[in-house]
Amino acid sequence: MLLRMSSLFLRTLREDPAEAEVPSHRLLVRAGYIRRAAPGGYTWLPLGKLVLDRVAEVVREEMAAIGGQEVLFPALLPREPYERSGRWLEYGPDMFRLRDRRGVEHLLAPTHEEMFTLLVKDLFSSYRDFPLVLFQVQTKFRDEPRPRAGLLRGREFLMKDSYSFDLDDAGLAASYERHRRAYQRIFDRLGLSYTIVAAMPGAMGGTRSEEFLAASPIGEDSYVACDACDYAANTEAVTTPAPPAGDPAAAGPLQVHDTPDTPTIESLVELANARRLAGRADWTAAATLKNVVVRLTQPDGAEEILVIGVPGDREVDMKRLAAAVYPATVSMFEDFAAHPDLVRGYIGPQVLRKLGVRYLVDPRVVPGTAWLTGANEPGRHATNVVCGRDFTPDGTVEAAEVRAGDPCPACQEGALAIRRGIEIGHVFQLGRRFADAFGLDALGPDGRPVRITMGSYGIGISRVVAAIAEQHHDERGLAWPAGAAPLDVHLVPAGAGPQLAAALDLAGELAGRGLRVLVDDRTNVSAGVKFADAELIGIPRAVVVGRRLAEGYVELRERASGERRDVPVGELVSRLVQAQV
Amino acid sequence: MLLRMSSLFLRTLREDPAEAEVPSHRLLVRAGYIRRAAPGGYTWLPLGKLVLDRVAEVVREEMAAIGGQEVLFPALLPREPYERSGRWLEYGPDMFRLRDRRGVEHLLAPTHEEMFTLLVKDLFSSYRDFPLVLFQVQTKFRDEPRPRAGLLRGREFLMKDSYSFDLDDAGLAASYERHRRAYQRIFDRLGLSYTIVAAMPGAMGGTRSEEFLAASPIGEDSYVACDACDYAANTEAVTTPAPPAGDPAAAGPLQVHDTPDTPTIESLVELANARRLAGRADWTAAATLKNVVVRLTQPDGAEEILVIGVPGDREVDMKRLAAAVYPATVSMFEDFAAHPDLVRGYIGPQVLRKLGVRYLVDPRVVPGTAWLTGANEPGRHATNVVCGRDFTPDGTVEAAEVRAGDPCPACQEGALAIRRGIEIGHVFQLGRRFADAFGLDALGPDGRPVRITMGSYGIGISRVVAAIAEQHHDERGLAWPAGAAPLDVHLVPAGAGPQLAAALDLAGELAGRGLRVLVDDRTNVSAGVKFADAELIGIPRAVVVGRRLAEGYVELRERASGERRDVPVGELVSRLVQAQV
Repeated sequence: MLLRMSSLFLRTLREDPAEAEVPSHRLLVRAGYIRRAAPGGYTWLPLGKLVLDRVAEVVREEMAAIGGQEVLFPALLPREPYERSGRWLEYGPDMFRLRDRRGVEHLLAPTHEEMFTLLVKDLFSSYRDFPLVLFQVQTKFRDEPRPRAGLLRGREFLMKDSYSFDLDDAGLAASYERHRRAYQRIFDRLGLSYTIVAAMPGAMGGTRSEEFLAASPIGEDSYVACDACDYAANTEAVTTPAPPAGDPAAAGPLQVHDTPDTPTIESLVELANARRLAGRADWTAAATLKNVVVRLTQPDGAEEILVIGVPGDREVDMKRLAAAVYPATVSMFEDFAAHPDLVRGYIGPQVLRKLGVRYLVDPRVVPGTAWLTGANEPGRHATNVVCGRDFTPDGTVEAAEVRAGDPCPACQEGALAIRRGIEIGHVFQLGRRFADAFGLDALGPDGRPVRITMGSYGIGISRVVAAIAEQHHDERGLAWPAGAAPLDVHLVPAGAGPQLAAALDLAGELAGRGLRVLVDDRTNVSAGVKFADAELIGIPRAVVVGRRLAEGYVELRERASGERRDVPVGELVSRLVQAQV
Repeated sequence: MLLRMSSLFLRTLREDPAEAEVPSHRLLVRAGYIRRAAPGGYTWLPLGKLVLDRVAEVVREEMAAIGGQEVLFPALLPREPYERSGRWLEYGPDMFRLRDRRGVEHLLAPTHEEMFTLLVKDLFSSYRDFPLVLFQVQTKFRDEPRPRAGLLRGREFLMKDSYSFDLDDAGLAASYERHRRAYQRIFDRLGLSYTIVAAMPGAMGGTRSEEFLAASPIGEDSYVACDACDYAANTEAVTTPAPPAGDPAAAGPLQVHDTPDTPTIESLVELANARRLAGRADWTAAATLKNVVVRLTQPDGAEEILVIGVPGDREVDMKRLAAAVYPATVSMFEDFAAHPDLVRGYIGPQVLRKLGVRYLVDPRVVPGTAWLTGANEPGRHATNVVCGRDFTPDGTVEAAEVRAGDPCPACQEGALAIRRGIEIGHVFQLGRRFADAFGLDALGPDGRPVRITMGSYGIGISRVVAAIAEQHHDERGLAWPAGAAPLDVHLVPAGAGPQLAAALDLAGELAGRGLRVLVDDRTNVSAGVKFADAELIGIPRAVVVGRRLAEGYVELRERASGERRDVPVGELVSRLVQAQV
């Protein structure tokens, strides 16, 4: 492949586009890879399309290597199968819905579990047909409330979604592991630095689930990693180690205290120490029990008031709470006027059972722990409110914020650090949710039906392009790793006469040897502009054909390292061809 | 590439699917290439995806060969640019429209003239940047009122759309010609037999326009071809040669006759001959002037009553009329009760001007022609109603049906034959419609702006797959031409022992030499089932490894011709590799 700058559909920009918030967005626009076409919708220009195709090709190769077979489903689908699986409701406003000319409801499918399940049921029926891995590379649509960050959060994007079908749990575990390794190979080949983190199964149900997060300070996903072991998890999926339970009867008696004007934990702790409540002056926020009232809405619309109890030194992390109660949704409860039994700022769990309100607590609230908490009267709090004696939670919930330094739930020894990343892949053990919904069975060797168990695996192909750009750039522009680069070599003649002719010759020779070459054959711009464009565009190797051409030398520049060395013209082609292998 | 039948996601069907109306649909489903997923929506199974990819690859190669640069636009676009070009209205109910969560209107773009125009305006500005050809391969959506015929008329399909940008008309003509030749190479490489027919510019405006129609008895497009010259045209685009005009004053006087109970042309001609109207007994339908009242609706909703005059031996072809009045739409006028001046069945053009009703006539109705037509009174007709004397049309319109045997408008000597075809490609000289709408100019060498002129070119990639299947099948199944085949060789061991082992060896060897191979390694089906599947699937060459293997021979079968010959095992690989080159 040989592209000429003089005719390439490209215009590099010296200025950052006004709307660009993150480096990948800024540089992909400036270097002429993408261009905004609509809110959350980008056009891939020729160089961008080359990168997108390379990423898709790497994904396809590695999917084929684990036996994946490529198919392609429609994106526009009728409501019915998604109704049957329950996801028509679950997906909520993120999914684009439309009606056809007859008024029939359709969706632009975010993923295709339903359709793959139906297709396999349609075609395959014997245990001999399994295991099976199918995948597609397809444009997906999502009604993002706030499209932003260029390709990272758009309304239209390219995704690889694949699905495994196995006869039993061991088969699913093996298919999952093969996908996991394929994803590692894919992201390694593409030059991405990433962490595999435990994730909430979330929207898909199922059991095991992990995300591949590309490390990036601008990542939207925060995750934790242990400083002592290899534990890493999505913040939503972090579990809190519970302390050992104690004897509820061992604590002193519950005492109620006047604590006027202490609606916040801070004001309460200050007063408790000033007045030496229960004879102590060492009160901390961690000794208080904060009770937060929320409204829980089930997918079918059923509503419930719920109280969440967390140690007072931690906030409730609404994202973690939302993940914990999924598919229900949660919002802050504000209507205290209508519920005088819930005394805002002074709620204690002692009365919740009587009020018929469910109470879920942080795992640290174990039987025998004694708390300073509300006394359910304005201006009053209680000490020695003991779990298992004065209240009994209805269960635990992972809703408290995770903090740097929290103990690692895996090794119990290390401390957690909080990091940010871009989700580039996701692997799920779906289990039998969709097979159950659609009755996907195989006839076993004994003639009995076996319910199929499934996995679901995604890679955001267009998002991967942005993640690579986030990890591979500097102040001068992009610096593609070889595995994802739009082209292999960028020839820059610094001079119009023999340099241009020599560059064109070399370009032809390199292209003839199978390299993908861009030659800057423009005659109306200076060498300085060409150099700046080459650094902005970020092809891994540039060859400058300059003054030393007369002596038989050209300069080879490595974009990422900045390394430059003079190479005899006669050796250039063989060197580059070898470097490519 | 080496695929094994034992693990391929494929299930061939012995029975025709109930809903399949045409051979391509029937066979692509039976042979496991596609599967219905939704009304008008098909899933590409692995074999089908291979064919789709090959067709797309051929299209990409030939587009690159004429300098086309590939980009990719979003499919989901906001209303605004389509509003500005007028197409938001023009497209009507065929276009899927939807609202996002904020209620903003969007469309799933049928084609992208607006967006390409805006993009080029955004990036390019100098005459040096032109000519330019951009293309994309993209999934398109169309709200088909009656999806049918499998891939031929679906609601979601793959299309290549490209656009040329030139500085002047000569440039556009050259870009158009390059596209036209590229299309010929594409369809030739894909083994399609096709005709290039003149088309109405239709939805796009512009000047020159041609369609590529693949000959097929089940084609939805009818076209005419001259038996003497190379004229071919879409039925909508056929022009009617006008006879020489005569002297309106030379005809005899207009006479009005009682013609009771003659609401139809047939009854009128019968009565006219029986009563020797105007002294003649040689009346034919061709001597009568039939006047059809229609309602014309402009895109902005403005309505008008229009009368169409055609020789009485021809029907008004509503498809031709619709194409002629586009972008207005036309429907039959029924509300005669509200318009007593229009006497149903007895309308003559004599009064139309007085009534303020526009009158458009077939090109055969020239000044000096005298007609038997309605007298605008119930039960009365007039003879010697002379064009240019008794009425003056407001213009001509190509609305009369075209019939086999009509004279060729090109050579004036041959007769037209009517044929059917599948539209597989379309080339348009758009001209400056979109450049005008969006102000797309280039700065000329003299510093003055030059308005760009555009071409628009489409190939229905998924439809091409179906068209190939329509042209290449027999009663036993598909028979792909080499250029579009999913795979090159199908190895069929007829026997489980040494035959299977030998077939697997050969398959590996052929795949190693770069051929794409399918080997039927199933051990639970008979040789007969394997042969039938091979013929149904239609890979161009099958190699049967059978009884003569012991003597060192295998059988090479050509799917299309049915030719079979024994080939020494040792020669097979080199023969097939050579045949492939």
